[in-house]
Amino acid sequence: MSVNLSVFDAFHKVQGLKIGTANAGIKQTERPDLVVFELPETASTSGIFTKNAFCAAPVQICKKHLAETNSKYLIINTGNANAGTGVGGYDDAMAICQKLADEKGVAVETVLPFSTGVIGERLPLDKILRTIPAALSDTSEDNWFVASNGIMTTDTQPKGTSIQFEYEGELITISGISKGAGMIKPNMATMLGFIATDAYVSKDILQELCSELGEKSFNRITIDGDTSTNDSCMLIASGTSKIKLIDKSGAFYSVLKQKLEEVFIYLAQAIVRDGEGATKFVAIDVKNCAAQQEALDVAYTVAHSPLVKTALFASDANWGRILAAVGRSGIENMDLDAIQIYLDDVCIVENGGRAASYTEEAGARVMAQQELSIVIDMGRGAFDETIWTTDLSHEYVTINAEYRT
Amino acid sequence: MSVNLSVFDAFHKVQGLKIGTANAGIKQTERPDLVVFELPETASTSGIFTKNAFCAAPVQICKKHLAETNSKYLIINTGNANAGTGVGGYDDAMAICQKLADEKGVAVETVLPFSTGVIGERLPLDKILRTIPAALSDTSEDNWFVASNGIMTTDTQPKGTSIQFEYEGELITISGISKGAGMIKPNMATMLGFIATDAYVSKDILQELCSELGEKSFNRITIDGDTSTNDSCMLIASGTSKIKLIDKSGAFYSVLKQKLEEVFIYLAQAIVRDGEGATKFVAIDVKNCAAQQEALDVAYTVAHSPLVKTALFASDANWGRILAAVGRSGIENMDLDAIQIYLDDVCIVENGGRAASYTEEAGARVMAQQELSIVIDMGRGAFDETIWTTDLSHEYVTINAEYRT
Repeated sequence: MSVNLSVFDAFHKVQGLKIGTANAGIKQTERPDLVVFELPETASTSGIFTKNAFCAAPVQICKKHLAETNSKYLIINTGNANAGTGVGGYDDAMAICQKLADEKGVAVETVLPFSTGVIGERLPLDKILRTIPAALSDTSEDNWFVASNGIMTTDTQPKGTSIQFEYEGELITISGISKGAGMIKPNMATMLGFIATDAYVSKDILQELCSELGEKSFNRITIDGDTSTNDSCMLIASGTSKIKLIDKSGAFYSVLKQKLEEVFIYLAQAIVRDGEGATKFVAIDVKNCAAQQEALDVAYTVAHSPLVKTALFASDANWGRILAAVGRSGIENMDLDAIQIYLDDVCIVENGGRAASYTEEAGARVMAQQELSIVIDMGRGAFDETIWTTDLSHEYVTINAEYRT
Repeated sequence: MSVNLSVFDAFHKVQGLKIGTANAGIKQTERPDLVVFELPETASTSGIFTKNAFCAAPVQICKKHLAETNSKYLIINTGNANAGTGVGGYDDAMAICQKLADEKGVAVETVLPFSTGVIGERLPLDKILRTIPAALSDTSEDNWFVASNGIMTTDTQPKGTSIQFEYEGELITISGISKGAGMIKPNMATMLGFIATDAYVSKDILQELCSELGEKSFNRITIDGDTSTNDSCMLIASGTSKIKLIDKSGAFYSVLKQKLEEVFIYLAQAIVRDGEGATKFVAIDVKNCAAQQEALDVAYTVAHSPLVKTALFASDANWGRILAAVGRSGIENMDLDAIQIYLDDVCIVENGGRAASYTEEAGARVMAQQELSIVIDMGRGAFDETIWTTDLSHEYVTINAEYRT
């Protein structure tokens, strides 16, 4: 199940960008498990990646290739993350890039590899290599929806969105897809995100946009605090539109950035809405901190507390657990009397205890909702942060206790 | 259920120290929920307490009273933690101390209060006040086992141990009890521990021993990463024995310390064995780190990973999740190739990937056990740490999603 997430299949084409899919049978799913993006000559590509020290072989190669030259192909497999696979795993990922490069007569450095799925097992390399031609011969501008299915692992639903807007008489398109669904944490989730626009954007500016918007979206979601070895979010500008972004001072910069931000946040939130076993979608708003990091520390301590998460699952307005989590978040010289905690607009904690105005009925009313905010006003500064998370349900345990079996 | 924990009821008396219990009906349990310790004139008392900034009213008072004078009484209630209760909660805890002080004609500062249970609700003060006389009239040196039941909350079993040893022809006794069972994390668990010896120990030395041994035991356990507002561990020396410890240079110091350490570690581990929903008892040994904190960071990141914990629950040797958790533990300049990870004596990770010698059968054999070690050799220094934790089971979710209802 998921929380207020509907299947999106009304993708607009991103001119010049083609997608192909195929089923290599990596984990015997009915869905395609191999996806190829083919980019036009005019394209720029940017990306942000997991900060896990054990980053997977494809992530290592992807970062290297992205830095070396203009990218022409992206290739994604699900069912196997090719992580913790040592030198052999690195060679496997390179073999995939090489096969694709040979098929299309391009340099191997123009190919960016991505993998997601189980950690620690070698890829079924032969299956993938022999399926690459099928994925390549399938490429079309119309395959976004199929691709949104093709990158799923334990996701219950494909995730995607697509918007268009006019700028100086030209129609600009942004389409994007993402996948979750557990091991979701800042920097980053077990997530893949692929977002593309047909605007032309120079590579440097595109990378800045990807980094900045990724920080506000994919790096502000958490399901279980576990950071994957494979997270990657790519922002592509196919460059086929007449509208060109080559310096940040023009009006188009802020217009495009704002539209991209909508897409980044939608796709990031979609991952939380479809988090493993999620029955709630919860925003944690931490306000008035003395520093940005302080706000994040409080937010993540609350978001990762198993006791808060199980209370959310139970729709139990157990504000004592929220208070206890704030109390252990490691903030120096916390002024307990200055802190106020709200469930949506219901004040639950003030002056170090239950708010005078609070009633169980008011708390229960908020907690009964599928979507709610926990608002924590620290009353000690001017820094705010918002992150998004889920509850901890039986279904989460079931999924993760049975993932490999 | 619990993991290899049996009920202990063969307590030795600690000469001079009397315990009384009664049922105040705080949460309508069949068990006593009010416990009083009565200490002789010769006693010294020491304690360590939660570092949660929102520490509960009884903890605030307990620390204050302990610093002010020699303690004569400890009073513990279960069913309600008197935490997050503001000024009113503080007054309630003081009223309990005052009632006991009035009953026995002692100064209020000689009374130390403790509470455990649900957070954020005011104590049923009248029930407690009117039950104090019954607890006081019940005091006896023989009540350790009843007390071990009386301090339980969601614990499935009472926890206690008792040892005796001879020193210079004198029999020295150490008895102790503890309670868990969720919200267990370093510094400290939702735990209470009461350990007593009949040796005479000066208050300063006793406090040093309590702090040092608490650090090695109660501050090295974690169930869900949540730190309670109420954790307290008290070490009492009744002082009725002829054996006196007044300076640390004598031989008795190291003998007593070693015996106390056994008791502290047993009681701390008992809390993990009876952790909420625990089906496994897991030691996380982190070796050869560049600093003590680094070893703890790695250990707790692995211990708190929901993905590692659910894999433990499933007896799934999913070493990729362990590796991913080590990778995100925040250690600078991690040398992936130097890291080795073992399940007991089975090497699972080396050279950044699955160990060459590893087989699924060997991993499965270790994971099938109720008790196991995850050994992480970081290969970058001389600092080691061991912590103890549990898995994350359906039962954990059930307990914590239903605690208040």
